[in-house]
Amino acid sequence: MTSNASDPRVSKRSDTAFETIALIGLGLIGSSLARAIVAARGDGALSARVVAHDADPEVRDVAREIGLGDAVEDTLEAAVRGADLVIIATPVGAVEAVLTAAAPGLQAGAVVSDVGSVKGAVAQAFGRLLPKGVLGVPAHPVAGTEQSGPEAGFATLFEDRWCILTPGDGAAEAQAAERVAQLWRALGSKVEFMSAAHHDRVLAVTSHLPHLIAYTIVGTASDLEQVSEAEVVKYSAGGFRDFTRIAASDPTMWRDVFLNNREAVLELLGRFTEDLIALQRSIRWEEGDALFDHFSRTRAIRRDVIEQGQDTADPDFGRRSGPAGREES
Amino acid sequence: MTSNASDPRVSKRSDTAFETIALIGLGLIGSSLARAIVAARGDGALSARVVAHDADPEVRDVAREIGLGDAVEDTLEAAVRGADLVIIATPVGAVEAVLTAAAPGLQAGAVVSDVGSVKGAVAQAFGRLLPKGVLGVPAHPVAGTEQSGPEAGFATLFEDRWCILTPGDGAAEAQAAERVAQLWRALGSKVEFMSAAHHDRVLAVTSHLPHLIAYTIVGTASDLEQVSEAEVVKYSAGGFRDFTRIAASDPTMWRDVFLNNREAVLELLGRFTEDLIALQRSIRWEEGDALFDHFSRTRAIRRDVIEQGQDTADPDFGRRSGPAGREES
Repeated sequence: MTSNASDPRVSKRSDTAFETIALIGLGLIGSSLARAIVAARGDGALSARVVAHDADPEVRDVAREIGLGDAVEDTLEAAVRGADLVIIATPVGAVEAVLTAAAPGLQAGAVVSDVGSVKGAVAQAFGRLLPKGVLGVPAHPVAGTEQSGPEAGFATLFEDRWCILTPGDGAAEAQAAERVAQLWRALGSKVEFMSAAHHDRVLAVTSHLPHLIAYTIVGTASDLEQVSEAEVVKYSAGGFRDFTRIAASDPTMWRDVFLNNREAVLELLGRFTEDLIALQRSIRWEEGDALFDHFSRTRAIRRDVIEQGQDTADPDFGRRSGPAGREES
Repeated sequence: MTSNASDPRVSKRSDTAFETIALIGLGLIGSSLARAIVAARGDGALSARVVAHDADPEVRDVAREIGLGDAVEDTLEAAVRGADLVIIATPVGAVEAVLTAAAPGLQAGAVVSDVGSVKGAVAQAFGRLLPKGVLGVPAHPVAGTEQSGPEAGFATLFEDRWCILTPGDGAAEAQAAERVAQLWRALGSKVEFMSAAHHDRVLAVTSHLPHLIAYTIVGTASDLEQVSEAEVVKYSAGGFRDFTRIAASDPTMWRDVFLNNREAVLELLGRFTEDLIALQRSIRWEEGDALFDHFSRTRAIRRDVIEQGQDTADPDFGRRSGPAGREES
């Protein structure tokens, strides 16, 4: 134990650290990973070489221009060759194809991980498609912004955020998961382990349903007869604008999330609809007390979110709105 | 015309400017108004005296401690006496009671306005309860944060935000509305006129439905068997935390909004539910293309919101999350 033991950023690389990390997919998360690993190398927390690849030649061009990682390879095969860790950072729907194409080139003892927002489907794909001697560690950094593409990433995206790992049973899996956890801790993340099924239920609540609802309400608002889209935009500061941020997230990523976490999302949607109809009924029958009680209960959750460091305490997210910005007094 | 004509902040007070403004209700909006008027006085844009009152003695104590306005009166009657403008900044449900109590003390020629998020009900109350010779101008500054109370207010809350006025027909009403518009422009707001009925339909979309949905989803998430509230909070950065902000808004204000804009909200809820069920069906039947198309359409609205200065272009509202904050690179 050293005096720095409590700070995971300071722990120097160990024998179990990865030497060559292949990043497949260079969107917001993949490009942030490339930046974060290089930054952690500067701090001495890591020493891994980063080889990057994206299926889209334009993304590879941008990645080269902005200097992501140590090399940007034109083919998946070249990227994974010699890597002891492959992180698939594509939309979840592309994981199977990447695994199928990468499998023959994976070296024995390599670890394959990902960053997807759905873990059950990924764990199944790993089980089905990874060659013998290669270990899969499904992972999900709970971090992101509404922006996408290689230029949207930044090195500190994962700092103080949770990364959830859902390794399978077995000693080898546990060992591989611990090595992946070390990597995420070196990037500033806090790591948690749980089953893939539980992950998918938790994220259905904290991420998938909120996105579906935001996509729905923004669609509804843009499609009305009596209120124009221009008016919706103009007066969006009343609450609507918050939803437009989430509804600006990457459509491919989110299509894949809903297709791959179908059961948990549909079950939760049933609960949400029940609750919405109950509130609707309270409005129709002018049950003021029921509305007041519901609206009071939800306040406590915001307090918890802030107390646990999951959001800023500043009003209105601390944002500066409009051309002139504003200062609080 | 002077060279400053295009900047409403610089227009000096005119003959039609109000001399004594009574603020009834000292929550987020009322206390921000008190601060903003005093600040505009410092700029020379206004010269009105500000007399404040709140029905809650504790709020009055706080208001005196933090020095809101020029005087804090213990009674509504004392506050409105001699005022040529009375602004009711209570929850919408209290407007009738305030009008009833204030009416006998209102001076001839006085103007009464408000700040409520519902305008039809307020316009009706004005028509029913204001004495002859007193003009009502329903108003709604589309500005706020999730916080409430006299200490949550700040002077720049209304800068670059819209204030919607819904005056009745008639030359006297139009003149009174123009005087109220002048006040809001002096506080940095942009002013728009529309009918009360149209306002209530527009705000049902841009504000009331978003709040109802946020209240619902936060309630649903806190009431599940398989996912604990602690987990919901812990992993809320995946999208859920955005909804907790809105769902932390003042319960009394929002109860009153839904009770007083019932028809528009219920009609819109019908549309929202239809759209949600359509998306739900697409998930159930794995219609990836339909999901992708919907999720792509909503992106354009975010772009418009940002281009029109209604929100920051910074990813994630530019917020700093977690104890250490984060910097982009």
